[in-house]
Amino acid sequence: MRVKDDVKQEALFQATVKLVNEIGFASSSVAKIARQANISPATIYVYYKNKEDLLVSTYIQIKRQLSAAVMQDFDAALPIPDILKDVWLKMFDYISSNSGYFQFTEQFANSPYSDLIDKQEVEKYFEPLIQVIQRGIEQKIIKDVNFDILTAFMVYPIMILSNPRLCQHIELNAETIETAFGLAWDAIKR
Amino acid sequence: MRVKDDVKQEALFQATVKLVNEIGFASSSVAKIARQANISPATIYVYYKNKEDLLVSTYIQIKRQLSAAVMQDFDAALPIPDILKDVWLKMFDYISSNSGYFQFTEQFANSPYSDLIDKQEVEKYFEPLIQVIQRGIEQKIIKDVNFDILTAFMVYPIMILSNPRLCQHIELNAETIETAFGLAWDAIKR
Repeated sequence: MRVKDDVKQEALFQATVKLVNEIGFASSSVAKIARQANISPATIYVYYKNKEDLLVSTYIQIKRQLSAAVMQDFDAALPIPDILKDVWLKMFDYISSNSGYFQFTEQFANSPYSDLIDKQEVEKYFEPLIQVIQRGIEQKIIKDVNFDILTAFMVYPIMILSNPRLCQHIELNAETIETAFGLAWDAIKR
Repeated sequence: MRVKDDVKQEALFQATVKLVNEIGFASSSVAKIARQANISPATIYVYYKNKEDLLVSTYIQIKRQLSAAVMQDFDAALPIPDILKDVWLKMFDYISSNSGYFQFTEQFANSPYSDLIDKQEVEKYFEPLIQVIQRGIEQKIIKDVNFDILTAFMVYPIMILSNPRLCQHIELNAETIETAFGLAWDAIKR
């Protein structure tokens, strides 16, 4: 029996992200990913059923890492705007330090592979944050509107602003990130 | 001398969008695009220098169409929130009716090809809208913050909300689109 190897799995993860970002999903074959990771193609199948499984697992792993990063030291007892601002700043830190991972998830979310994701599983990682927002709605601090609308203003702008290809006029620093949070909070507060 | 042919050019435009959306930028060769458009590869070079030129022109054409659609019947004399709401609704209409074009521009903006775009030329198409926002800032109606921050709240949420792969909980209709505009306006207003 072959034992799964964390080092190999990490090499595969990094190779998948790197190759997909360079040449896209369609051209990233298992053989090419194996070569990039310096692992035999046969070994990939010890870890993953097929290319789809490898891509989906890579996406899920990044989302899990992101949720752990933004909810580190999460303190549900703080005032709601303070909690959301802390998450906002940590999300910015994560995305700026891991732009390759982020580029992968953005491409993935816009690709047909996205249909293979169990969205409820991914949402579970963000459950404490979802609960804070629901509490905000109940306490009439946050607007009682569809959750996707709140997310479009509370989560996506930080992704847009962190993308140097989309935003060329802005120098992101502590001040501009905090200014942007002010707009996000004005959007969702009652 | 060969005369350029609008029908062929339109077929090429449609074929480029379709193929790139199906198989990605890296795999979309000039030969494959020609086959998809039912045009000989040699003919493509009557219109475009190379693959990059074809992709960039396709992107520019969609942006020009989008700007024409959202600024149709543009009336700079109306109150600023009314102008922005009208643009918001027209942007939603354009994106919902042309989801393929939109998928192409999103992929393009996140790809290395995006570096080939003359961003100032694209911004020129949206000049009347940019002037309205600048007027709003001068009149202290709109927050005096970096333009990229305003755009992240005034333009991108409608793109996110119109993307069925990103937003699964929402049924977009006149009411939800108007609710979402309320959040966008609360974000940018002073």
